[in-house]
Amino acid sequence: MEKVNVGVIGVGRIGRLHARNLKYQIPGTKVLAVADIFEKSTKEVASQLEIPIAEKDYQVLLENKNIDAVVICSSTDTHAQIISEAAQAGKHIFCEKPIALDVEKIDQAIDAVKKAGVKLQVGFNRRFDPSFKKAKDMVAKGTIGTPHLVRITSRDPEPPPISYIKVSGGIFLDMMIHDFDMARYLLDQEVVELMAVGSCLIDQAIGKAGDIDTAIVTLKYENGAWGTIDNSRKSAYGYDQRIEIFGSEGCVIVGNPTPTEVTINSAEDTKTDKPLYFFTERYQEAYLAEMKEFIKCIQENAKPLVGGFDGKISVQMGYAAKESLIKGSFVKITK
Amino acid sequence: MEKVNVGVIGVGRIGRLHARNLKYQIPGTKVLAVADIFEKSTKEVASQLEIPIAEKDYQVLLENKNIDAVVICSSTDTHAQIISEAAQAGKHIFCEKPIALDVEKIDQAIDAVKKAGVKLQVGFNRRFDPSFKKAKDMVAKGTIGTPHLVRITSRDPEPPPISYIKVSGGIFLDMMIHDFDMARYLLDQEVVELMAVGSCLIDQAIGKAGDIDTAIVTLKYENGAWGTIDNSRKSAYGYDQRIEIFGSEGCVIVGNPTPTEVTINSAEDTKTDKPLYFFTERYQEAYLAEMKEFIKCIQENAKPLVGGFDGKISVQMGYAAKESLIKGSFVKITK
Amino acid sequence: MEKVNVGVIGVGRIGRLHARNLKYQIPGTKVLAVADIFEKSTKEVASQLEIPIAEKDYQVLLENKNIDAVVICSSTDTHAQIISEAAQAGKHIFCEKPIALDVEKIDQAIDAVKKAGVKLQVGFNRRFDPSFKKAKDMVAKGTIGTPHLVRITSRDPEPPPISYIKVSGGIFLDMMIHDFDMARYLLDQEVVELMAVGSCLIDQAIGKAGDIDTAIVTLKYENGAWGTIDNSRKSAYGYDQRIEIFGSEGCVIVGNPTPTEVTINSAEDTKTDKPLYFFTERYQEAYLAEMKEFIKCIQENAKPLVGGFDGKISVQMGYAAKESLIKGSFVKITK
Amino acid sequence: MEKVNVGVIGVGRIGRLHARNLKYQIPGTKVLAVADIFEKSTKEVASQLEIPIAEKDYQVLLENKNIDAVVICSSTDTHAQIISEAAQAGKHIFCEKPIALDVEKIDQAIDAVKKAGVKLQVGFNRRFDPSFKKAKDMVAKGTIGTPHLVRITSRDPEPPPISYIKVSGGIFLDMMIHDFDMARYLLDQEVVELMAVGSCLIDQAIGKAGDIDTAIVTLKYENGAWGTIDNSRKSAYGYDQRIEIFGSEGCVIVGNPTPTEVTINSAEDTKTDKPLYFFTERYQEAYLAEMKEFIKCIQENAKPLVGGFDGKISVQMGYAAKESLIKGSFVKITK
Repeated sequence: MEKVNVGVIGVGRIGRLHARNLKYQIPGTKVLAVADIFEKSTKEVASQLEIPIAEKDYQVLLENKNIDAVVICSSTDTHAQIISEAAQAGKHIFCEKPIALDVEKIDQAIDAVKKAGVKLQVGFNRRFDPSFKKAKDMVAKGTIGTPHLVRITSRDPEPPPISYIKVSGGIFLDMMIHDFDMARYLLDQEVVELMAVGSCLIDQAIGKAGDIDTAIVTLKYENGAWGTIDNSRKSAYGYDQRIEIFGSEGCVIVGNPTPTEVTINSAEDTKTDKPLYFFTERYQEAYLAEMKEFIKCIQENAKPLVGGFDGKISVQMGYAAKESLIKGSFVKITK
Repeated sequence: MEKVNVGVIGVGRIGRLHARNLKYQIPGTKVLAVADIFEKSTKEVASQLEIPIAEKDYQVLLENKNIDAVVICSSTDTHAQIISEAAQAGKHIFCEKPIALDVEKIDQAIDAVKKAGVKLQVGFNRRFDPSFKKAKDMVAKGTIGTPHLVRITSRDPEPPPISYIKVSGGIFLDMMIHDFDMARYLLDQEVVELMAVGSCLIDQAIGKAGDIDTAIVTLKYENGAWGTIDNSRKSAYGYDQRIEIFGSEGCVIVGNPTPTEVTINSAEDTKTDKPLYFFTERYQEAYLAEMKEFIKCIQENAKPLVGGFDGKISVQMGYAAKESLIKGSFVKITK
Repeated sequence: MEKVNVGVIGVGRIGRLHARNLKYQIPGTKVLAVADIFEKSTKEVASQLEIPIAEKDYQVLLENKNIDAVVICSSTDTHAQIISEAAQAGKHIFCEKPIALDVEKIDQAIDAVKKAGVKLQVGFNRRFDPSFKKAKDMVAKGTIGTPHLVRITSRDPEPPPISYIKVSGGIFLDMMIHDFDMARYLLDQEVVELMAVGSCLIDQAIGKAGDIDTAIVTLKYENGAWGTIDNSRKSAYGYDQRIEIFGSEGCVIVGNPTPTEVTINSAEDTKTDKPLYFFTERYQEAYLAEMKEFIKCIQENAKPLVGGFDGKISVQMGYAAKESLIKGSFVKITK
Repeated sequence: MEKVNVGVIGVGRIGRLHARNLKYQIPGTKVLAVADIFEKSTKEVASQLEIPIAEKDYQVLLENKNIDAVVICSSTDTHAQIISEAAQAGKHIFCEKPIALDVEKIDQAIDAVKKAGVKLQVGFNRRFDPSFKKAKDMVAKGTIGTPHLVRITSRDPEPPPISYIKVSGGIFLDMMIHDFDMARYLLDQEVVELMAVGSCLIDQAIGKAGDIDTAIVTLKYENGAWGTIDNSRKSAYGYDQRIEIFGSEGCVIVGNPTPTEVTINSAEDTKTDKPLYFFTERYQEAYLAEMKEFIKCIQENAKPLVGGFDGKISVQMGYAAKESLIKGSFVKITK
């Protein structure tokens, strides 16, 4: 295939990151246009990255015949609508997670994609982290035998602003959604039911905004394996993202990468680095790898590894967790 | 105080280990007698360790005025009765866990100890492991701020024989009982309710014997912190005993010790040792330290760090877990 | 300052790497031209990276008034001459190590730079590795007190072709030259004498080409500290680049980074990744950081951290090592 | 064979350690007697460990027909003489290192042992450290192919008193002698020549006493491999004892054991334990293992793994190092 011409919709932190990766690190791609409701940002990004077209309205991009694919990084509430329109315009679609907080809207978006026969990849970037991918591959190869237990730890360095918390959908749909996807990805199996506990231990303002900041979810997989996920909105030592899969023949563990390999032996103790600070540092390679994968799927007419169903089921797991938290018992996951 | 004269009741693997530690590594102690219903073993141990008295009947030891303390390592179903009799005979008591599988019997034993005013220490040896003790001390000193999450992993290298499983009381009372005690010990706080899941993933014969071999329990502490424990009866890489306490200011993690500090860099990967094989290797220092503590409590007339209440509450947590497994919901812990 | 216009001279592996970094990752820079005696390569690179000018003759670049700086990545024997000419043409200069194998030529090049008043930075990229830089900064801050011992390990995954060995100047001038610079950098001190041993243990063809493949050098610093460097041309487990600085108050150690953070616990042992394969993987960040530093020095009219003297002294250390190997005793380093 | 009756000569720190190990941890042994010129200490040890005979004069032990073997832990200047007398008395001999500082005396002692046909084991305890032994076994099995480089680091937490330094024979004969033995042991090969450098960087009083406190020695093995040893009399972070053997197929590295497996993640960095403090902590298992080996050699009439020749050659390496330090060049090792 020829060069893939891409338009980026939404140029906040993640949108810029994707635009820069597409521009500089992915051969066979051309970033033809950016669009964002904040005109100033759009022009700034376009000028900085030498992108020819900068629009306020994303629909101008959809109408542009030269654009093959769009990368949707606008606010969550606009994702589903833009997906549908982009699909109708025949564009391939990369969309940041979640597709929507409303399952009906997700279904409509997925339907539109199906009808149009375009590609849809959802931004579960962690699947492209070299460590998590290696762990998954080991499991798939049978290195640890039959999986029995999955443990996922996911802790952010700082909670987001309360204003964000209020519209986020809550910890299960905003934060643990990544871990739900990871849980399914690692074993290549569905979770059939789950049980959530949690409370507000970090900041009471989060509680007042109707959310919790600390949570543990227990998962049951379709083949009988068990999993646990723990989340905290505030880890004093930075971004903590670890997983462990225990099986009949062994155990695969993924730890946190650090900025350097320096060890200091002192009279008090032995010191090494704390983990990389947050997701842009930790998942730098993963963000690039997922975008390379998207472009490759377009060029080779292949099915993206993370599709609409993955985007939908993780949202449904989030709702199941919310329901379980209230009920105090296991809740089955609707498919 | 003078030398503490000790009698060891039950000389199976653990009884011998305690006798040897008392004999050779704890100054200020004299192992005066051993008793076991298997006469041959008793004589063997007595001869090997040069212990003057070897009896079939433990009551002979209780009647011996020269004996200050007994170490009870006989089968679980005899613990409570021997504790009561030993207390009445004015002996200080070290008893292997659990005190009994019947809470009423535990209460009777604790009552007898109270009335007699003797010391009772229960054999939760892991509290004396240097790594777990350091972790607990860090938490107590406030190193990690307010604790929010506790994670305990406990996996045995091999399941016990099915004959043992049948009389063990099940995974929660036989195996996870140690982790219940560890959970309370690490935060110096009670668990108020818990939720158990689990199933038979390793050996169907364990299921036929009415037990499970894989389990996850979620704990709620009285101050609002949360915990999880995972247990497996069979870890291919040996005894896996790790903990993690996450708090507002940091996280303390305890890993597995290994036999050597050797690393091999090869063309394929980097190899280090697997963990120490099982509890006698892993907790060698802990077994010695708990016995030193017991003798010290007698000599200095101090209260043992692990008493009757600790022995009782861990059994009650085991029953709560059994109940939760059936109910599929949280169960409060009776005190 | 305005945008820095750069010309890259020599577009082999390292030249391309620098061109790509300058083009895509260093804002405030424009790669205006490339030159290489291999016309095809030059055009290829220019087309791929959208560089306007592609020349066979580097002198065309020197005559171009729009070019502010050149990055010299041609073969070693051309470095000194191009430096002199570029200086006379008023261009700032980044030059790959070594400046030359002939000290007189180095002096001439340094003189030309001095007269012209342009910047010269030599490509000792390892100084910009985040781990080594942190180690050096710790030492400078006094974290380990007064340094007593420096240990540097440097082992390549594969020896270069024999044809390269023949013109390389030998292991001390081709390979250990990086470690000589590192030794000086870490303590910010000169080495006054050194002693070399070594032999041909990997491939006899290297010996026939007049070189050795395994070497140890002992260093004496001006303030009395001691150092050792070991080099091997073939490490079965990949690129091994570690350092250690031991001082009166502690020790700083730098280990090898790995591709992932995955640990596999198996019935045999515990496995982690081997180190990153070779220098382009290991020093990816360092190559970018040194070029950012060079551009910043031009923009802010600052003195480069690695100058002509650093380029010269490391070559002199290489000759001292060669002499010591023959003599079997310590050799003083000429300055 | 029957029980081995042992007499311990010299009951300072190491003598007591061996006596306690023999008494309590090595079945098939009886500590029949202790002797030491300090009568009070002798009686104290005898009473504490319930050893029947306590003498001032070691010769009384040699005359005692019931004693099969002696463990010589008296001051270095007495070792050779006691070995000779013990051999003549038909006793098997374990002797702490070094046999003597005078090679002629070592030869006489070895001759006496040979004539008498008794066993002689020299106390190079580090050979029995589980990590070093595993490393050596890996090398012997060919795990790393042909060895090319050996690196040994050996740093004490504190220098000994100046009074001790004065009679110690100097850093090479007192401290590095262990590393010389380790160097030979790891490759099961002789060192043919060596080159020493060093100086007084820690305490000038050590220099005034005629010794140095920091040293590096480069070794050449008979098959062409190279080695380096570094020694420091004062490591702020405790006992640092590491080795590394690099070969054609890989590398074996031994790190320092630590008291616990605790990791603390804090807002500043990640902290783990410093190494075990000094040799009694680090080599606890090794001291026991070497004594078990000695007793086993007697019982099974086998040749000790560390004999008179090992004791002699390590002293000769120490003298070669002293000579090299003065000469500033390589010195061949006399055998």
